[in-house]
Amino acid sequence: MKRIVLLRHGESEWNKENRFTGWTDVPLTPKGIEEAAEAGKLLMDLGFRFDMAFTSYLRRAVRTLDVVLERMDQMYIPVRKSWRLNEKHYGFLQGLNKRETAEKYGEKQVQIWRRSYDVAPAPLAPDDPRSPLLDPRYVKVPVNELPLTESLKDTVRRTMPYWECEIMPALADNDTLLVVAHGNSLRAIIKNLKHIPDDEIAELNLPTATPWVFEFNDDLTYRSDYMPGDAEEIARRMKAVANQASAPDASRDASPSARS
Amino acid sequence: MKRIVLLRHGESEWNKENRFTGWTDVPLTPKGIEEAAEAGKLLMDLGFRFDMAFTSYLRRAVRTLDVVLERMDQMYIPVRKSWRLNEKHYGFLQGLNKRETAEKYGEKQVQIWRRSYDVAPAPLAPDDPRSPLLDPRYVKVPVNELPLTESLKDTVRRTMPYWECEIMPALADNDTLLVVAHGNSLRAIIKNLKHIPDDEIAELNLPTATPWVFEFNDDLTYRSDYMPGDAEEIARRMKAVANQASAPDASRDASPSARS
Repeated sequence: MKRIVLLRHGESEWNKENRFTGWTDVPLTPKGIEEAAEAGKLLMDLGFRFDMAFTSYLRRAVRTLDVVLERMDQMYIPVRKSWRLNEKHYGFLQGLNKRETAEKYGEKQVQIWRRSYDVAPAPLAPDDPRSPLLDPRYVKVPVNELPLTESLKDTVRRTMPYWECEIMPALADNDTLLVVAHGNSLRAIIKNLKHIPDDEIAELNLPTATPWVFEFNDDLTYRSDYMPGDAEEIARRMKAVANQASAPDASRDASPSARS
Repeated sequence: MKRIVLLRHGESEWNKENRFTGWTDVPLTPKGIEEAAEAGKLLMDLGFRFDMAFTSYLRRAVRTLDVVLERMDQMYIPVRKSWRLNEKHYGFLQGLNKRETAEKYGEKQVQIWRRSYDVAPAPLAPDDPRSPLLDPRYVKVPVNELPLTESLKDTVRRTMPYWECEIMPALADNDTLLVVAHGNSLRAIIKNLKHIPDDEIAELNLPTATPWVFEFNDDLTYRSDYMPGDAEEIARRMKAVANQASAPDASRDASPSARS
């Protein structure tokens, strides 16, 4: 049996400040680093030995991965990074406070931006200081691939080629992989694996730094999934993510089975 | 002009305890982490933007690299790791205190083990708990390539193929690379670049976490090298490394030119 562990980064400075982050490169908080170390300890206690790891270009994900591997004493494994695993690009919303945005544009509009599948916020101007077109780290990405805003559908469209062309082939050659990424790039992957419909996927709230184990048959077909660890603590973390905007927000019931 | 920055890892727990480390996977000390952050700050202040980085399988080197890239806000760059950049394997000496070893075997013998070019300490038994043959991280390395002891000559022989087949081709495709490794794998590289004779190379004492910049012409031929930073502090660090065993030990004069 083969396994891929999906892991959302630990708490970042802007998770804490409740701001739309997207591609903004904010660091982890001390709590986020601690969460990452806890995830590493849990995975080590469960006997995981990773063959390879994948992460995004954003420091909150890279640092989470570094801390996990350090805690597991597996810092020697190969790590591959891709902009395709970055968070959803939030366009003009990047940097704005979620509650203030709800007050200004109305909760209904914010819910559409956050939870609809195919509505994107207004794009950044190409010469906006926040634009990825001006960021040297993306200089090797074709300009027409770089987003100035994204719907979740757009995020799915740029994440899945990496899953299919890099991560699944690596699973063919290896038994155990780790992917450390973001709420929405992981939603894209999980949507695909579990066939979650367009209008349900946004309700899946991934808790920070909580490993989600996906098991695969030897022919690389999906087999099952579970979240190891303390089920109550996991439920608490999922609720915290769901409650980040003030509007009422339903958590998707029973999405992963907890296995303690 | 193209550049490769060579960097020895920061102070490790066994540097501090003055023990032969070799392939033993000891962590950095808090001082070592601070040294790495200082190296990152220096490189950032000098405007270095790395295209790629290379390091060994050993956590003191990987962590040094992680800290440097975090300090420089360049955590997104590709990183490649190889056992070929590991420290010289010290055979049965691994774990022993350098001064105690000098008392037991005589300073002359310890100087031969530490400073001769082609004399290796006695090997570990293949089933010694310290043997790389039993370490899962080396499971994909052909068994006949894995050392149970090494002379500096042996270290040169296994490091240089990686330099030639991975690092130099990467320099052909890029402008600025970072290599974070160990006293002896870096000696191997510098010996080759600067044509240092067999009987002189062991006297080259690389200070911890002190960037050494090598410049190359566009045809990848070596052009010049220098150590940026505070020349007095660099001299002090080189002397500290040279003095780790009790025997008198000549520092190689004027090896890098300091450029402040």
